[in-house]
Amino acid sequence: MKAMGSTCWIIPEGFVPSRSMANADRPLLSHEAFCVLNIGDADAHIEVTLFFTDREPVGPYRGQVGARRTRHFRFNDLDDPEPLPLDTDYASVIRSDVPIVVQHTRLDSRAADIALLSTMAYPAV
Amino acid sequence: MKAMGSTCWIIPEGFVPSRSMANADRPLLSHEAFCVLNIGDADAHIEVTLFFTDREPVGPYRGQVGARRTRHFRFNDLDDPEPLPLDTDYASVIRSDVPIVVQHTRLDSRAADIALLSTMAYPAV
Amino acid sequence: MKAMGSTCWIIPEGFVPSRSMANADRPLLSHEAFCVLNIGDADAHIEVTLFFTDREPVGPYRGQVGARRTRHFRFNDLDDPEPLPLDTDYASVIRSDVPIVVQHTRLDSRAADIALLSTMAYPAV
Amino acid sequence: MKAMGSTCWIIPEGFVPSRSMANADRPLLSHEAFCVLNIGDADAHIEVTLFFTDREPVGPYRGQVGARRTRHFRFNDLDDPEPLPLDTDYASVIRSDVPIVVQHTRLDSRAADIALLSTMAYPAV
Repeated sequence: MKAMGSTCWIIPEGFVPSRSMANADRPLLSHEAFCVLNIGDADAHIEVTLFFTDREPVGPYRGQVGARRTRHFRFNDLDDPEPLPLDTDYASVIRSDVPIVVQHTRLDSRAADIALLSTMAYPAV
Repeated sequence: MKAMGSTCWIIPEGFVPSRSMANADRPLLSHEAFCVLNIGDADAHIEVTLFFTDREPVGPYRGQVGARRTRHFRFNDLDDPEPLPLDTDYASVIRSDVPIVVQHTRLDSRAADIALLSTMAYPAV
Repeated sequence: MKAMGSTCWIIPEGFVPSRSMANADRPLLSHEAFCVLNIGDADAHIEVTLFFTDREPVGPYRGQVGARRTRHFRFNDLDDPEPLPLDTDYASVIRSDVPIVVQHTRLDSRAADIALLSTMAYPAV
Repeated sequence: MKAMGSTCWIIPEGFVPSRSMANADRPLLSHEAFCVLNIGDADAHIEVTLFFTDREPVGPYRGQVGARRTRHFRFNDLDDPEPLPLDTDYASVIRSDVPIVVQHTRLDSRAADIALLSTMAYPAV
């Protein structure tokens, strides 16, 4: 199958609350994710750069999405070169060596219940 | 009316929780949907392929949307060639023989209340 | 100011629940809206067509958005040629004689609390 | 890094509730934001214009986003030339002298819990 999408995706919104609802298991823990789909026949090597309000960007964070595979990466699982700071505004750029498609989500369980947001990321190239 | 949209739409995010709120009727059952609008004068024959993290894609799932009709398909109603696995990351590609427009939604009632997300799918062609 | 946007916008998702939370005032009543921004110097005359699963489209519903104005139309306020059916899947096409931008939202207060979704509509032209 | 995005972004939806959940701290106060990412090497000078249903647009509101920085501006923090009216439909146009990317969000805590919405803004140029 032919790869489709873009090799650079931009997500201006980013905020992972440090709080979650009581007894949240991993699925219900407050988190943000970028969901990658690589429908092509070559593995995608991706590099994520995080942007902040008051300091230089951090990255690249590296990941891989196999041919014909999807991976939903949690921003709060990123830890190399450094963990994502919680309760902090950030933004992200996701680059890939082959075309991919990227969607952004947040599950927010700070209050007694969950709230969700999602949008397609912005294809910059 | 002239058909409008794209013949290939991509949705990287996918996750249907197995849990729902107590006494959820069908409308409030946790689900994800792809909403198709076919404004043209020819029926749309669609094929859905599901992508996963650790195995080959599954499909095609086949459906039809009549001329000048909308259909809101629940991913968790798909069952041929096999049912959608719950509590599992997935992604989807929706192809059509005529131009359509596709929007993605989740209603999540795992917690005591409902949460919603939606985004236009990514038009790949 | 020069008009910007598109003259035809498509929203495949549509569903207005008949239920709302107890004592909901108008802002918290379950509803869907299409928000129109007309930044140009000419009034926008818009025509909405509603699409359904099992019958022919209904419309046009007519509206107007003045030059340099925004209007957030509730689908459940549409009543001519006929009211929007509740608890029913629908989709919509919004046409305008001048370029506009359209965003889709739902406020859903069926459960004890509210849930929100939003996406930019799809610019078809 | 080369600047990417657009120099004009449009958000037709706008509504900031005056109510919030009891004891809401700043993060949980009902608010809407436009999140700006400037990945380029020059500072971005932005101008926001607000549009209403029944009066002329208000603005420009001015802001700055440094090179390689993100800023998440709350609409309800805007106060010059005048504060954003609450409980009032509005829309916005965000212009920049260099390419940026803009995402829209609302956190709504009118009810006992929070609800979220988000979408990429519409790139008009």
